[in-house]
Amino acid sequence: MAHFKNKQVVLASRPKDIPEAENFIIVENITPEILDGQILVRNIFLSVEPAMKGWVSAIGNYAEPVALNSVMKSFATGIVVESRHPNFSKGEFVTGLFGWQEYALVEVDTIDRKINSHHLPISTSLGVLGINGMSAYFGLLEIGQPVSGETVVVSTAAGAVGSCVGQIAKLKECYTVGITGGQEKVSLCKGLYQYDQAIDYKSSEFQQDLSKACPNGIDVYFDNTGGKISDAVMQLLNVGARIVICGTSSISSWQPLPTGPRNERQILVNRARMQGFLIFDYKERFPEALETLTKWVGSGLIQYREDILHGINEAPDAISSLYRGENLGKRLIQIHTL
Amino acid sequence: MAHFKNKQVVLASRPKDIPEAENFIIVENITPEILDGQILVRNIFLSVEPAMKGWVSAIGNYAEPVALNSVMKSFATGIVVESRHPNFSKGEFVTGLFGWQEYALVEVDTIDRKINSHHLPISTSLGVLGINGMSAYFGLLEIGQPVSGETVVVSTAAGAVGSCVGQIAKLKECYTVGITGGQEKVSLCKGLYQYDQAIDYKSSEFQQDLSKACPNGIDVYFDNTGGKISDAVMQLLNVGARIVICGTSSISSWQPLPTGPRNERQILVNRARMQGFLIFDYKERFPEALETLTKWVGSGLIQYREDILHGINEAPDAISSLYRGENLGKRLIQIHTL
Repeated sequence: MAHFKNKQVVLASRPKDIPEAENFIIVENITPEILDGQILVRNIFLSVEPAMKGWVSAIGNYAEPVALNSVMKSFATGIVVESRHPNFSKGEFVTGLFGWQEYALVEVDTIDRKINSHHLPISTSLGVLGINGMSAYFGLLEIGQPVSGETVVVSTAAGAVGSCVGQIAKLKECYTVGITGGQEKVSLCKGLYQYDQAIDYKSSEFQQDLSKACPNGIDVYFDNTGGKISDAVMQLLNVGARIVICGTSSISSWQPLPTGPRNERQILVNRARMQGFLIFDYKERFPEALETLTKWVGSGLIQYREDILHGINEAPDAISSLYRGENLGKRLIQIHTL
Repeated sequence: MAHFKNKQVVLASRPKDIPEAENFIIVENITPEILDGQILVRNIFLSVEPAMKGWVSAIGNYAEPVALNSVMKSFATGIVVESRHPNFSKGEFVTGLFGWQEYALVEVDTIDRKINSHHLPISTSLGVLGINGMSAYFGLLEIGQPVSGETVVVSTAAGAVGSCVGQIAKLKECYTVGITGGQEKVSLCKGLYQYDQAIDYKSSEFQQDLSKACPNGIDVYFDNTGGKISDAVMQLLNVGARIVICGTSSISSWQPLPTGPRNERQILVNRARMQGFLIFDYKERFPEALETLTKWVGSGLIQYREDILHGINEAPDAISSLYRGENLGKRLIQIHTL
């Protein structure tokens, strides 16, 4: 069997808030001996998610935090270069929690799925056909429950999840309003992602702009940011509104607890429902979502955009870069050619 | 036909926050001529609700605010003294939105129901068999959805709604924790209302007491207060927790918006659901709830307590008194003998 030089991005120190480049180091190892039942994957694309901030946080979360001095947890898509498991063969494309490294020696339970359909780029397995698309699909449809004609507002509207939410809402015949940062992303929302309205939260007129963009109030709010953007949305809720809490990217630190306007009254008076969700709770239904999303993306009903960096050296700064809003589309790092 | 002297409690000025005695005046009129289709009711019990603060507020709410110089809106229970409607007869007991006045000349749509079952006091029609019991029933069962073995926490646990919530949760085999103010109410919670634990939010150890009282975390929070009590509860949520927003009595003013710890992260990480409800949205299902509650109360499975003032002169200060926490049980004002 072959051994490969394996660059790995290791968590060197625990960030206080947003993980920065200096919290990681890159080490080089040799891939170890492959054992029965294991698969060796050459990673081609590494994923970068806002959720990684939570994954490395020492504060209680839905999973154990990434241990110091271990390879950074991440989704990745790659090709099987060696297999000692009967269900996987050399040359197959797979996606899973392979970590920020060039090669991953994994057990099968680390693999989310094989990528069978090759008419779409394999990179989509990490974005619109990965957890971002799944988050949009289940978060909007299961928790948001949009109804034709309703107003659906999305924060981080041009992001990997948000852009998909806006387009699914449009497919459900809703009036869609995207909230995003800067004119370039506003244009992307109005153009590629077909939002009915898109507004810039950085504008000094944001609250008025939002109010104008939602003349019939807000029925569904898909929230990726929390914070001041949500505060503005809460003032425009309709009776029976649903608020889907998918992320809190606008809050850089939760220790100490940040304060903001209390929202109990808006929730009470509007009989609104605010609900958090974690996409992994829907794991058993991923195949259903994947089938639908693949159809929508394949037929052009859902557009997506990727923003791909090249080389594993880009990884350490990549989370911080996301929080700075520098990406236009799903942030990936390509570390091997196809 | 007879005309009666009719003392009425009139909203004289709009309160800034909590309605105080000086916001009302008592006037005396003569009941007008009864017209076809109308019913003249002699009010026996007037109800006092925390929600009345909202009813007189100029800030947008679920109903038009009570107009200045008009009779204060309230639920009341009384006896038909004259009827020009075929469905109602002299001597029948009725309950409805009859207002803070000695006599109410009403159309039938103002009447919620006749009180047919006389084995329970008619005053229960305004509390445990009225909107308080209904709020507990639908809020807890429909929104809170408690499951046997779960921990259910109730704020204003000794109040007209809260005490009923705690007992219904107990009937559903939940572990119940009541939050209330002062040792007398703590004792009432542990005794009459059979909470497994009851704690005093006025204690300096409140957060620790709550934590100790909920060793398995919190699955359902029935919230009548909002504010700091809720802030403490939010820190103890379990995955999948449900938060029922029924009232916000701890917040004296919503203008300007009060601030508090942001709750998005707790909702997200715990995939919690926070939902407001308005009991009138369940109006069509009131008969079902009434039947069940009547059975429970009649058989002693649900205990209730009333705190009855006497004379219409007590009305003006009664809302403020509720917010001062002076009542032990459902606050009513008896203005006529049975």
